[in-house]
Amino acid sequence: MENRLKIAVIGGGSSYTPELIEGIILNHAQLPVSEIWLVDIEAGKHKLEIVGNLAKRMVKKSGLPLDVHLTLNRREALDGASFVSTQMRVGLLEARIWDERIPLKFGVIGQETTGPGGMMKALRTIPVLLDICKDMEELCPSAWLLNFTNPAGMVTEAIHKYSSIKTIGLCNAPTGVYKWLSELFEVPAEQIYAEFVGLNHLHWVTQVSINGESKLEQLFYLREGYSAKNVPQSEWNADFIHGLGAIPSYYLKYYYLTKEMLEEQLTSSAKEGTRAEIVKRLEDELFELYKDPDLAEKPEQLAKRGGTYYSEAAVNLMKSLYNDTRDIQTLNVANGRTLDFLPADACIEVNCVVTKQGPIPLPVSRVPVSVKGLILAVKTYEQLAIEAAVHGDRSLALQALGHHPLIPSVNVADSLLKEMLEQNKAFLPRFFQS
Amino acid sequence: MENRLKIAVIGGGSSYTPELIEGIILNHAQLPVSEIWLVDIEAGKHKLEIVGNLAKRMVKKSGLPLDVHLTLNRREALDGASFVSTQMRVGLLEARIWDERIPLKFGVIGQETTGPGGMMKALRTIPVLLDICKDMEELCPSAWLLNFTNPAGMVTEAIHKYSSIKTIGLCNAPTGVYKWLSELFEVPAEQIYAEFVGLNHLHWVTQVSINGESKLEQLFYLREGYSAKNVPQSEWNADFIHGLGAIPSYYLKYYYLTKEMLEEQLTSSAKEGTRAEIVKRLEDELFELYKDPDLAEKPEQLAKRGGTYYSEAAVNLMKSLYNDTRDIQTLNVANGRTLDFLPADACIEVNCVVTKQGPIPLPVSRVPVSVKGLILAVKTYEQLAIEAAVHGDRSLALQALGHHPLIPSVNVADSLLKEMLEQNKAFLPRFFQS
Amino acid sequence: MENRLKIAVIGGGSSYTPELIEGIILNHAQLPVSEIWLVDIEAGKHKLEIVGNLAKRMVKKSGLPLDVHLTLNRREALDGASFVSTQMRVGLLEARIWDERIPLKFGVIGQETTGPGGMMKALRTIPVLLDICKDMEELCPSAWLLNFTNPAGMVTEAIHKYSSIKTIGLCNAPTGVYKWLSELFEVPAEQIYAEFVGLNHLHWVTQVSINGESKLEQLFYLREGYSAKNVPQSEWNADFIHGLGAIPSYYLKYYYLTKEMLEEQLTSSAKEGTRAEIVKRLEDELFELYKDPDLAEKPEQLAKRGGTYYSEAAVNLMKSLYNDTRDIQTLNVANGRTLDFLPADACIEVNCVVTKQGPIPLPVSRVPVSVKGLILAVKTYEQLAIEAAVHGDRSLALQALGHHPLIPSVNVADSLLKEMLEQNKAFLPRFFQS
Amino acid sequence: MENRLKIAVIGGGSSYTPELIEGIILNHAQLPVSEIWLVDIEAGKHKLEIVGNLAKRMVKKSGLPLDVHLTLNRREALDGASFVSTQMRVGLLEARIWDERIPLKFGVIGQETTGPGGMMKALRTIPVLLDICKDMEELCPSAWLLNFTNPAGMVTEAIHKYSSIKTIGLCNAPTGVYKWLSELFEVPAEQIYAEFVGLNHLHWVTQVSINGESKLEQLFYLREGYSAKNVPQSEWNADFIHGLGAIPSYYLKYYYLTKEMLEEQLTSSAKEGTRAEIVKRLEDELFELYKDPDLAEKPEQLAKRGGTYYSEAAVNLMKSLYNDTRDIQTLNVANGRTLDFLPADACIEVNCVVTKQGPIPLPVSRVPVSVKGLILAVKTYEQLAIEAAVHGDRSLALQALGHHPLIPSVNVADSLLKEMLEQNKAFLPRFFQS
Repeated sequence: MENRLKIAVIGGGSSYTPELIEGIILNHAQLPVSEIWLVDIEAGKHKLEIVGNLAKRMVKKSGLPLDVHLTLNRREALDGASFVSTQMRVGLLEARIWDERIPLKFGVIGQETTGPGGMMKALRTIPVLLDICKDMEELCPSAWLLNFTNPAGMVTEAIHKYSSIKTIGLCNAPTGVYKWLSELFEVPAEQIYAEFVGLNHLHWVTQVSINGESKLEQLFYLREGYSAKNVPQSEWNADFIHGLGAIPSYYLKYYYLTKEMLEEQLTSSAKEGTRAEIVKRLEDELFELYKDPDLAEKPEQLAKRGGTYYSEAAVNLMKSLYNDTRDIQTLNVANGRTLDFLPADACIEVNCVVTKQGPIPLPVSRVPVSVKGLILAVKTYEQLAIEAAVHGDRSLALQALGHHPLIPSVNVADSLLKEMLEQNKAFLPRFFQS
Repeated sequence: MENRLKIAVIGGGSSYTPELIEGIILNHAQLPVSEIWLVDIEAGKHKLEIVGNLAKRMVKKSGLPLDVHLTLNRREALDGASFVSTQMRVGLLEARIWDERIPLKFGVIGQETTGPGGMMKALRTIPVLLDICKDMEELCPSAWLLNFTNPAGMVTEAIHKYSSIKTIGLCNAPTGVYKWLSELFEVPAEQIYAEFVGLNHLHWVTQVSINGESKLEQLFYLREGYSAKNVPQSEWNADFIHGLGAIPSYYLKYYYLTKEMLEEQLTSSAKEGTRAEIVKRLEDELFELYKDPDLAEKPEQLAKRGGTYYSEAAVNLMKSLYNDTRDIQTLNVANGRTLDFLPADACIEVNCVVTKQGPIPLPVSRVPVSVKGLILAVKTYEQLAIEAAVHGDRSLALQALGHHPLIPSVNVADSLLKEMLEQNKAFLPRFFQS
Repeated sequence: MENRLKIAVIGGGSSYTPELIEGIILNHAQLPVSEIWLVDIEAGKHKLEIVGNLAKRMVKKSGLPLDVHLTLNRREALDGASFVSTQMRVGLLEARIWDERIPLKFGVIGQETTGPGGMMKALRTIPVLLDICKDMEELCPSAWLLNFTNPAGMVTEAIHKYSSIKTIGLCNAPTGVYKWLSELFEVPAEQIYAEFVGLNHLHWVTQVSINGESKLEQLFYLREGYSAKNVPQSEWNADFIHGLGAIPSYYLKYYYLTKEMLEEQLTSSAKEGTRAEIVKRLEDELFELYKDPDLAEKPEQLAKRGGTYYSEAAVNLMKSLYNDTRDIQTLNVANGRTLDFLPADACIEVNCVVTKQGPIPLPVSRVPVSVKGLILAVKTYEQLAIEAAVHGDRSLALQALGHHPLIPSVNVADSLLKEMLEQNKAFLPRFFQS
Repeated sequence: MENRLKIAVIGGGSSYTPELIEGIILNHAQLPVSEIWLVDIEAGKHKLEIVGNLAKRMVKKSGLPLDVHLTLNRREALDGASFVSTQMRVGLLEARIWDERIPLKFGVIGQETTGPGGMMKALRTIPVLLDICKDMEELCPSAWLLNFTNPAGMVTEAIHKYSSIKTIGLCNAPTGVYKWLSELFEVPAEQIYAEFVGLNHLHWVTQVSINGESKLEQLFYLREGYSAKNVPQSEWNADFIHGLGAIPSYYLKYYYLTKEMLEEQLTSSAKEGTRAEIVKRLEDELFELYKDPDLAEKPEQLAKRGGTYYSEAAVNLMKSLYNDTRDIQTLNVANGRTLDFLPADACIEVNCVVTKQGPIPLPVSRVPVSVKGLILAVKTYEQLAIEAAVHGDRSLALQALGHHPLIPSVNVADSLLKEMLEQNKAFLPRFFQS
């Protein structure tokens, strides 16, 4: 890699972009980026201009030798890039509203990344990402693709399986855990050693130690734990967590507290709309702010949006890859032999050492025995759904959904799938070929 | 082994006993049994006498050199036995009624062997079986224990782990599959090759061939499939089964059609009582019949009871062990390296070659990928529940139930467990030690 | 399969053929063969006629409805066959003489199937067998190929990897073990349960039980053990065998007693010639006998030749495949998950249940820990040599030989390989392409 | 850990000690050692005083707040230590002379750590180390034991299996590889990424990259490669190394060039004595130098001794453990799931991330397929020899030696073992109990 880096941002018109720009500016000394290309599709042109102009103002204010380019031409953006970052949303927030609303009609959790909604997002997104990878294979074959696009684990695994492009899946949740622990114990995050095991949005923290001393036990009895904007607060059952011996991701509430979470979704979606509808309102407000020609920094309101720490995760990873830092980060990578009950090519979320050659997953010291079945069941669903997405195969999609732990009956899976496919028809060309 | 075999039947007062006696009589040429000891507990004395006298009349009619002994002294029955068969029910049918009724109050499947009811049965039964094994280690250490006691997979695994006694778990369901296929295709069962994979009451048939020709595909489109008395008929979704590529056990309806099965249970339990209540009435009728001093054969009505083929499975297994027949039977044995996603000591239900040294599990040609997660989740629950049973550990029991695929919330698991433990207090001394 | 079976014998002019014919005649009731095609190459025409006419006389004498055909047209022989048996020798006994002589010049064991000689045989043979399989894929795609051609394990593995033809590797050594045990203990072979583990010509017997009683211990102290004509008698070190806890194949003397066996080879090859030279003389004598127009049965002298039991192994296997007998035989099949330190596609020699779908390898109860390294080293050499044979790759051949446990130096491997390749040039077209 | 560290050095009278003292002095800022305890046995008292006084002079010159203690009381030295380092030699150089001389009499490689000599060293050393660990369990249970005592892999594995003390095996060879590459490519060692795979004194370097670029290919064609004082120079066969695709440790010459190395040993041992005899002369010279009361630094002549880089390896490891540095070092640790053909508890030499909790082995990207057999064979020998050492079991020792790849015959193993055990009688109490 050279000392003049080009970064391409797919879905550059996203409201998250100012975060990323801020991160690149702050870390310029260790990551000599000279060009940022924000690329979006025709339908996102307006947003791209708003957020792109803010980005330009931010860079200008920084005084760094760094150019921001806005384009609708993906190939131009990818050409010669060192890093490609994706933060796009096929079908925009409208499709997310369906992902959240339709399952609720069938008495099933409606969520952006977990359950049937997550599967629909995967079916829409994977073929588009694979197309981007095809361009990359031609235009920047040795670039790293930093994938934030949800469901990040599934999308990353699909790229591992169907492209030669090197990709790493990222999520802000592990960074959030470190931030939470850092505040809780009043030590810098670097002094905390936390071990993660599981899948994207399905991980458990099985070890927390500070200066060699375990802190896990005392975390079991915190009523709240770490949570995020997009997952409602429900209190954990402390006896259960203690017996489990690990801190579950807040996404695991959908599995461990299915009944309560479903009730909450039904209530809140009736009252204030689903999360997608709330986010849509927040985004509208954000873009109003972004338009302000005097604004030349990330506005504070972005934090409410939910995706905080994304930029931190992305920039940290790029820095480590570029500088061969060999530090430990929690990433979505191929399992290899890390978890013995999963296939080698399954994408998992786990601590890695980041070298110039890429991340190397660290062996895990322990997997709570009780969660292996859930991990395997969800991973199996993911693998079936990936194949369904790639081949446009309804039968595989039914197998995937029918075996998903949140589905109460194969017949429900069947009806729900039919309605969701129909609703997403415009974004699923492979499923509706004549 | 000698040519004068002693068989001890634990729970000898069971209504199934005439089946077993019939089997022993019919197979005497290959299995030279000279003594059958029917043993029961004080509370079962009355039934033991009724069924024991019927057994004596059956043997007398056969004219074989075979003695039937009735006893309440377990040690006397076990002493020097070559085979021990168990068909007992700790807590009798009353406890089964709780197993079926209490979960329904929490909106959870109530079933004798599957879900919370099965776990309670395991908690009651495993310590008693381990006590029997302790006696066997002293009185007949090289006897084979043929375990029919449900949940047969869990009980068998517990004995493998906590006793030196050689045991094999048996279920009539695989025999039933062969009978069904034999009628369907009008060929003798011996000409059918069927491959089973999974756990007890959680298996799939992944291969059916007759004279080298596969018959699996046509079975996917049968609306009914093979079922049994104790599991209500619900039609399978043929598209789903076809996509799955395997015939699920009828017990899998509790997982694949949870919603429908739960509704059916709620309706029928209100109308005609749970299965335990029906069985109780059937058993009362059977014992009335058994009392008839002129009856010297298995009455036809026993077939309605549901446990048909049990005797066939048991006698076939004893014959093969005794004669080193090396034929293939579907049994519950330690996994070894058969299923790569399960621990070696997990008890699985799978085809085995039965040699004089015991059954050797055959490698499976295929496990449908979509079911691995379910198998691992249920096996993990089973392993946690076995440890809970052995140690009387509530925390493990909560982990087991909280991770069971049929449980909609950890909080539900918590409440349900508390009520079930309290109700079963009399049969759970290890959980209620001061 | 029909009830009129066609069998094709590749290398039909072999001196072993009368054995096979005898076996087919004796087992005709369970294996309704109607046509035997003996096929050979032009160079073997004379022998084919001699042995073929003997075969015809034998069949005629039997009075069975069975035709013997002699042909040089391989495709005609294969067309529509149910079973194909191979017993050919690329390069004839001349090449075997080189295999045995050249290594000795470098101070290395010279043997037909073990070490450098075995590798050369594999390099000559594998491409020819793969050509036969190509014909079979076209002319008899569902036939079983019974492979006796040495090195049988490597040849079988090559076919598994590079052809769709179903093949099973056979060796007379396991049959010989059963015969030996049967005589030793004076019981029929069917009552003996022996467990084999390892590779072809590299197996250990780890269990011997008769009527459920272990006989292994007493076998450790026999000075001689089972041996065969082609491996010289050297006494085992009884302490070592006892510590090992298993009976090694007599081929293992080349590994365990390398020094002594090498000395023996140097002495005896100087005195009476190598085994190939002795066999050549024996064969000449046999063919003189075969010419006798009055001879209509297998002559006793064939037993001296060394390949006794071959026919028995072949006919037993065909009977079990045809009749779905599900009995246990020791065969060379793909490892699957049998030995956890070998790849799934490694060909191993192990007990199998023979069903109509083919042999299913039985899990082994134990592998002596001390031999795992040797098995893996030899299997790795085999896999490298197979690739070398298929691709005509000298570098792989050097890796194979350089890592073979019988080779004292990579430099020796290098020189030895060069001389052997040069000597075998006529039979190694893939290694000598311009 | 506190900020006043106590280090105990077992075998403190070793000629290597000045190296270690120098390392501790140079790294005091990051590793706040306040006490060094040099401990030795009565027989080593004289040397301990000489080298101890030199150590004291070195420390005094440094001006650091650091005390050097000399003692023959091991328990006093261990009490409260944070790190324990071992560099002792049971039987002193005299025993090493036997290890090198006796095998040569039988035509077998005679070497300190490889082959029969290494086994004898293991048999002498393991029980003594386990005794030290027993003291540590009482006096400093959470100390790290840095084990340099050869055969380091076997000794480390023995401690993992038979003690609760945390231990890590170290070898100077990997450090030497980095030094060599650093000079060769003229870059600092920190910029080199090299991947090691294998066992102690049996590793291969399978990846060398500098700034993301692979340098492996060009290393194949260097005639000499990296070597060390104690292993004679023999040129590698470049074709073979290229085909292998990895750089073998110089210790692998004993396996790949057995014939040549044996000849070299026979010649040089006759001419100038074995390596032990040379070392003995060098040590005598060194101790003469050490006596000089004006000497207050490590003398240059120590480099000739052969153990250079030992101190660097030790101090680097202590620094990383103490500071939670999370850098990558090549260490001897438990395999876990790193190499799929070895048991989880096998000690391997592999890249690790060093955290405060200890080293975590990194997954390897590749193991040359051809070497797996050799690794497994040697590891199996090691595991058998460890058990032999712990239990004083001759039969296991014979299995170990009889299966060692450098042994030409089980009978040779038997005779050689008998002679070596007899010669080492004084140091093998467990083998000579009445």
